[in-house]
Amino acid sequence: MGLMSGTSLDGIDAALVEIQGSGTSTKVKLIEFVTCPFSDTIRKEIQDACSVEFSSVRLITSLNFKLGYLFAEAVKKVCEKARVDPKDLDFIGSHGQTIFHLPFPEGSDEVPSTLQIGEPAVIAYETETCVVSNFRTMDMAAGGQGAPLVPYTDFLLFRSSDGRALQNIGGIGNVTVIPKEAEFEDVFAFDTGPGNMIIDAICQRLFGKPYDEDGQIAARGQVHEPLLAECMSHPYFAEHPPKSTGRELFGEEYVSTLLAKWGFLPSEDLVATVTMFTAQSIVDSYQRFIFPQYEIEEVVVSGGGAYNRTLLKMMASLLPDCKVVTQEDLGYSSAAKEAIAFAILANETLHNQPANVPKATGAKKRVILGNITPAPRG
Amino acid sequence: MGLMSGTSLDGIDAALVEIQGSGTSTKVKLIEFVTCPFSDTIRKEIQDACSVEFSSVRLITSLNFKLGYLFAEAVKKVCEKARVDPKDLDFIGSHGQTIFHLPFPEGSDEVPSTLQIGEPAVIAYETETCVVSNFRTMDMAAGGQGAPLVPYTDFLLFRSSDGRALQNIGGIGNVTVIPKEAEFEDVFAFDTGPGNMIIDAICQRLFGKPYDEDGQIAARGQVHEPLLAECMSHPYFAEHPPKSTGRELFGEEYVSTLLAKWGFLPSEDLVATVTMFTAQSIVDSYQRFIFPQYEIEEVVVSGGGAYNRTLLKMMASLLPDCKVVTQEDLGYSSAAKEAIAFAILANETLHNQPANVPKATGAKKRVILGNITPAPRG
Repeated sequence: MGLMSGTSLDGIDAALVEIQGSGTSTKVKLIEFVTCPFSDTIRKEIQDACSVEFSSVRLITSLNFKLGYLFAEAVKKVCEKARVDPKDLDFIGSHGQTIFHLPFPEGSDEVPSTLQIGEPAVIAYETETCVVSNFRTMDMAAGGQGAPLVPYTDFLLFRSSDGRALQNIGGIGNVTVIPKEAEFEDVFAFDTGPGNMIIDAICQRLFGKPYDEDGQIAARGQVHEPLLAECMSHPYFAEHPPKSTGRELFGEEYVSTLLAKWGFLPSEDLVATVTMFTAQSIVDSYQRFIFPQYEIEEVVVSGGGAYNRTLLKMMASLLPDCKVVTQEDLGYSSAAKEAIAFAILANETLHNQPANVPKATGAKKRVILGNITPAPRG
Repeated sequence: MGLMSGTSLDGIDAALVEIQGSGTSTKVKLIEFVTCPFSDTIRKEIQDACSVEFSSVRLITSLNFKLGYLFAEAVKKVCEKARVDPKDLDFIGSHGQTIFHLPFPEGSDEVPSTLQIGEPAVIAYETETCVVSNFRTMDMAAGGQGAPLVPYTDFLLFRSSDGRALQNIGGIGNVTVIPKEAEFEDVFAFDTGPGNMIIDAICQRLFGKPYDEDGQIAARGQVHEPLLAECMSHPYFAEHPPKSTGRELFGEEYVSTLLAKWGFLPSEDLVATVTMFTAQSIVDSYQRFIFPQYEIEEVVVSGGGAYNRTLLKMMASLLPDCKVVTQEDLGYSSAAKEAIAFAILANETLHNQPANVPKATGAKKRVILGNITPAPRG
């Protein structure tokens, strides 16, 4: 079982998979998948826990356990759908919920660090199954940024005779570059910038909708070039990979500042513009850091963004020389991709296999990721 | 290797031990022990992280990693002293630093929970050794209070033909009751209330000293009965075991309130009175919850409090029918006891042995504690 809850805060993805082998001999089959949406109350609690201003040790302590129970419920739900008893699972790989990601602290009194919550002991107790979790910390201990981690599973599943860019668009956008006939050492990856995070926040504030379904709102609006240019001037985009980002740069504070200055624009135009911002920041990063060195035939989009048709059209128009497809076009699931990845990463941990990609995270070496919480009775 | 950093915040205890066997056949020998004191800066950061008011997600995220590095340094220090290469260790059992313990949340929007920090991936990476950590969460997932955990190792090491109360006096006081010829099921334990926490805080504020060395300050003061009576009226002492407490009840806020009202008393008298408060709250709990049912011949004191002679004298005078001794009197180390306990608990985890004591924590069943962070290269 793989569990993922991304920076988009829409809910918990749970993917029941059948895995055979490990490392480059890994074969994986998706059996069942559910997304358990967060209630507004929980989403608000997570947002508070992510915010320097509203977080407290008491909130984080309680929310860590509370999310553990919600993760366990997601496991039970997908098991019920697949008619499997949770305690018959071999293991659960749980990413947890990132509430802070600090790869480059500014002050001298801080150290590079990251924090995922969703207590694995609660998941293990409630499901009577061994849990592997906290995948990002060991990479960071090894000098990496703790992200992105999916490049490893991307390489295992998607290496090909064509050059591929695997673009995930969750809350944040990240790309894994798998050159033609790649060996493990050739793979690299980085966060391209915002994914759905800004689009979702604007839809919530201006339309009372959790996200822009199929990109319908954006399709009705006009891109406002001065706003787009201002968005694209963010210093993150000029930084060289490896690099990673999160809610710290493109979260609620970013959106508040944007609306304070540009809120006079028609609401549809705002959604269209931030949708183009996501598309352009992705393509811009390809032009800066990928295309000069690698021939890419195919861009494979996953994550919630794969269902935003306007976003996909914008990307395709900005990438005239590539085929822009979704995971579905290759027989996979856009939505389940990250949850499946953490089942595979957990399998690697239990096989004592290092699973970070140093070229993607900047780590000094390959290391075994995560920690193992045994089932309560072994 | 066992690592402990208690609520007293005086530093990291690291005990290098040799363990043979597991469960009731466990044999343990202390090889080397060091305490690495916290700098004032780190102590202040931990205090802020423990406080609802001053904590933030950013502080907690960074401090979790920072403490990981300090724990790793403590491992290296004790290894250097013992001339052992850290990567030759079999494993490290790390308790971490509790920054919040919430066994009984008040609001309906919170769940019972606890949070220990000191990132195990950092310890594992820096020492190239497997780390077992987060021992308290699984017991809490099983409906327990996540504390106390030491009763299990107390039972393994101190069961005897005499009835024994093993009283640890760290920041908090806790007792393990091992009746005559006890079986595992007979053992119970609870937190008696404050240990050195209030004494230390008053010494820091009024004398600029980290603690009352040998109880010298208390020895010069007079116990002020009205203040003592007020302290003893705290509702915690009437609660029936299982029960546990921490900095939430008897921390900085408690001391500020106490000094606001009673600060006019001579400083020595204040130290004498809170020292008697610790002694009396311990003995009072024995009279309420232990003596009515069990014959106790021997009280064995451990933790920093074992070095406070005034405190020991006060306890002895309040316990005329018991022998009050220290761990040293039995050939053990008062200071190293808890660090040793977490090495033993880690050994149990790695042997797939449940190690909570349901009668001590209130858990619904015996469960395997902790999670295992593999060494970075297996």
